[in-house]
Amino acid sequence: MSSHSALPAVLDHIDAHLDESLERLMALLRLPSISTDPAFKADCDRAADWLVGALADLGMEARKDATPGHPMVVAHGPQQAGRHVLFYGHYDVQPVDPLELWHRDPFDPAIEETPAGKVIRGRGASDDKGQLMTFVEACRAWIAVHGSLPARVSIFLEGEEESGSPSLVPYMKANAEELRADLALICDTGMFDPQTPAITTMLRGLVGEEIVITGPNKDLHSGSFGGAAMNPARVLARILADLHDEDGRITLEGFYDDVPELSNAQRAQWENLGFDADGFLGAVGLKHPAGERGRSALEMLWSRPTCEINGMISGYTGAGFKTVLPSRASAKVSFRLVGQQDPAKIRAALRKHVEARLPADCTVDYIDHSAGPASVMATDDPAFEAARQALSDEWPRPAAFIGCGGSIPIAGYFKTVLGMDSMLIGYGRDDDQIHSPNEKYDLESFHKGIRSWARILAALAKA
Amino acid sequence: MSSHSALPAVLDHIDAHLDESLERLMALLRLPSISTDPAFKADCDRAADWLVGALADLGMEARKDATPGHPMVVAHGPQQAGRHVLFYGHYDVQPVDPLELWHRDPFDPAIEETPAGKVIRGRGASDDKGQLMTFVEACRAWIAVHGSLPARVSIFLEGEEESGSPSLVPYMKANAEELRADLALICDTGMFDPQTPAITTMLRGLVGEEIVITGPNKDLHSGSFGGAAMNPARVLARILADLHDEDGRITLEGFYDDVPELSNAQRAQWENLGFDADGFLGAVGLKHPAGERGRSALEMLWSRPTCEINGMISGYTGAGFKTVLPSRASAKVSFRLVGQQDPAKIRAALRKHVEARLPADCTVDYIDHSAGPASVMATDDPAFEAARQALSDEWPRPAAFIGCGGSIPIAGYFKTVLGMDSMLIGYGRDDDQIHSPNEKYDLESFHKGIRSWARILAALAKA
Repeated sequence: MSSHSALPAVLDHIDAHLDESLERLMALLRLPSISTDPAFKADCDRAADWLVGALADLGMEARKDATPGHPMVVAHGPQQAGRHVLFYGHYDVQPVDPLELWHRDPFDPAIEETPAGKVIRGRGASDDKGQLMTFVEACRAWIAVHGSLPARVSIFLEGEEESGSPSLVPYMKANAEELRADLALICDTGMFDPQTPAITTMLRGLVGEEIVITGPNKDLHSGSFGGAAMNPARVLARILADLHDEDGRITLEGFYDDVPELSNAQRAQWENLGFDADGFLGAVGLKHPAGERGRSALEMLWSRPTCEINGMISGYTGAGFKTVLPSRASAKVSFRLVGQQDPAKIRAALRKHVEARLPADCTVDYIDHSAGPASVMATDDPAFEAARQALSDEWPRPAAFIGCGGSIPIAGYFKTVLGMDSMLIGYGRDDDQIHSPNEKYDLESFHKGIRSWARILAALAKA
Repeated sequence: MSSHSALPAVLDHIDAHLDESLERLMALLRLPSISTDPAFKADCDRAADWLVGALADLGMEARKDATPGHPMVVAHGPQQAGRHVLFYGHYDVQPVDPLELWHRDPFDPAIEETPAGKVIRGRGASDDKGQLMTFVEACRAWIAVHGSLPARVSIFLEGEEESGSPSLVPYMKANAEELRADLALICDTGMFDPQTPAITTMLRGLVGEEIVITGPNKDLHSGSFGGAAMNPARVLARILADLHDEDGRITLEGFYDDVPELSNAQRAQWENLGFDADGFLGAVGLKHPAGERGRSALEMLWSRPTCEINGMISGYTGAGFKTVLPSRASAKVSFRLVGQQDPAKIRAALRKHVEARLPADCTVDYIDHSAGPASVMATDDPAFEAARQALSDEWPRPAAFIGCGGSIPIAGYFKTVLGMDSMLIGYGRDDDQIHSPNEKYDLESFHKGIRSWARILAALAKA
């Protein structure tokens, strides 16, 4: 039986067993695998164990490998011939604060009815547990119905994606032969809109840096010392304020040197997508694109580099007022990179910017959080067209090749470490509130996501 | 017996009973009366009860009065004739964070040996429990030895000084007849140096304001929205950075309109004090006066207005990194005022500064924390010279009339609400670390402080 004629029974099986697929996702969502916070280390380990169990249960050879950080999960399907694809996802999740803005416990997930349909509510529902489970459940259905997969499939899941993936590259290098496939499949991106599936072919890179300014050697009374002692919060405010000019451009020296302009063809394709910038910003209470003057919102999101303050703190921040002159002030700053921007060069330019504004009485420490370059996929592999067709068969509108504002460094690592291209397909929506309170994944994303992967696996066998 | 010949027996009694005085102070320091944090409301109440008990025990008529906030303590001494003085102190203390920088529990006080002598370590040891107890113990010694005080004494203690004193003025207005005296004595200031006692005759005023900037209606993923959505942390950084110009001057419109220049006589007196600016800053790890260019450190501290960031927070500030684009950013900002600067006018100028830098997509909320004008005392009352002489008799060097960088709004309220001048005398030292971790009060400050008040009470009877 060809993979094509085998597909309808698989899709029927997915529809008939959706509740069981959901139950398995819920069990994974209940594990609070927050990778950036050491308090949740054991929970990350439990999530890895759970996945090993689930993959073994559906008929794959699965194991957990320890790393200096959180463990890796690796599994191989029953087929060992044909086109080999390596599926990547991550089982770790973002922190949940501010917890008071959640309307339910982030780790007690539930199906909720909303005006837009049913959603799965909980931390990780979309990023990335719900997404990775669409692929796992598609494999489960193929094996349940036919005892085999239409392609040679390996699965590679990490637990440090939300905390800079410190163990990833060393692990990939040490296990390169096992992990290298013909193509990587990465499920950590979104649809273009709820009707239009997407294959993401442009990804921004990321540099994360924490800047810690120290002035006096202890917190002081602003009455006793104010006016005479240097306030590090004032120094930090100047450093952060000067990162952008009045036109919204980033002021670091050489920042735009390796930023390409969009080709006319790309710009035309994106204009044809009919992106609703007003609706996109309006959904989060905003009206005005805040990036570089003269750029469209889609350019700002997909093809322009950015600099954002992700967090800052200094002095007394509790209830009431304390007239302290703080000893320290710190900020977490990140840059989204495009084109050939070099993460190391950008980090060095930031440090130069900081030091140029550092008065004699302050010192600075840095915490280097993460770095990865931007990437652009080679879409001439026929697998891309096959997957686009498979997605278009499942969803109301044809699939599009799009850019993505987020950074998925794994795609760059697959290329540089394993010499392998990546195809990024996911079913997230813009309103999923990933990294925010009340994260959700539409039940439709989950259900049609499983069906999409079932179709793509069949299509890849032929491509 | 004259108050002068009665004094030596009182001083001997103080010396002989110092351990018992210390035990009473320790009991008061064990009560965590943090007024700004609602979690400690019951502890503030217990501190007020403790003081009522202590004042009644030494022979005064004492009571606790409820307010909408923390209670007031009022007591009257046995004498009802002669010059009437009203002593003021506060039993509330500052918050203790960052707690990890304390080398002992802030509310488990102890006498510690240091290279500079014995100190009483604990939150409130100096500000203001140790200071107020110097006066209470001086009264106790007079009454224990002679059954009476050399002057007519009332005591007025509040529990909201560290949180803006919201109940103070309404309470003073409602009890004006009872509280009005010939002179107020305020014990919440410091020595000029460890050998030189001081009567503080210039106090800076204070305006405290919290600025809360809101951009998107929820925290966003900086990958999905970065570049297109307005980041309120960036807006706040600009607002804060622009509060000072390159010369360290505050940029608010009209800020310096009501700031007087020092008279030549004042400047000469201060220059003669031989203030060690290098030592003052060196003690907290700094070298360069950070205020207005061209001003001496003592001017910056005593006679120039300031603007300080006391706290700021936005986004993710925990361990690791979170690529959030925050919904909110807030800062607590305070101004120290001098001369005729009007707190309401300064607050309005700050809000104008904020709003001029607020993009269309951000909103601002303010939390009004406290406001009080600067004050300059009328030192021609002979009580000032009498107290100066009494202090000079106790300490190695003659007492000085000085300025103070801190804000003690009570002195202004005594003038405006009760029409009463204030004499500010205290025994704190610059290195007491008030409002900071490891606050202390020198045992010498406590012991000689009690003796000083015993002398001043005798001197006031004659003045």
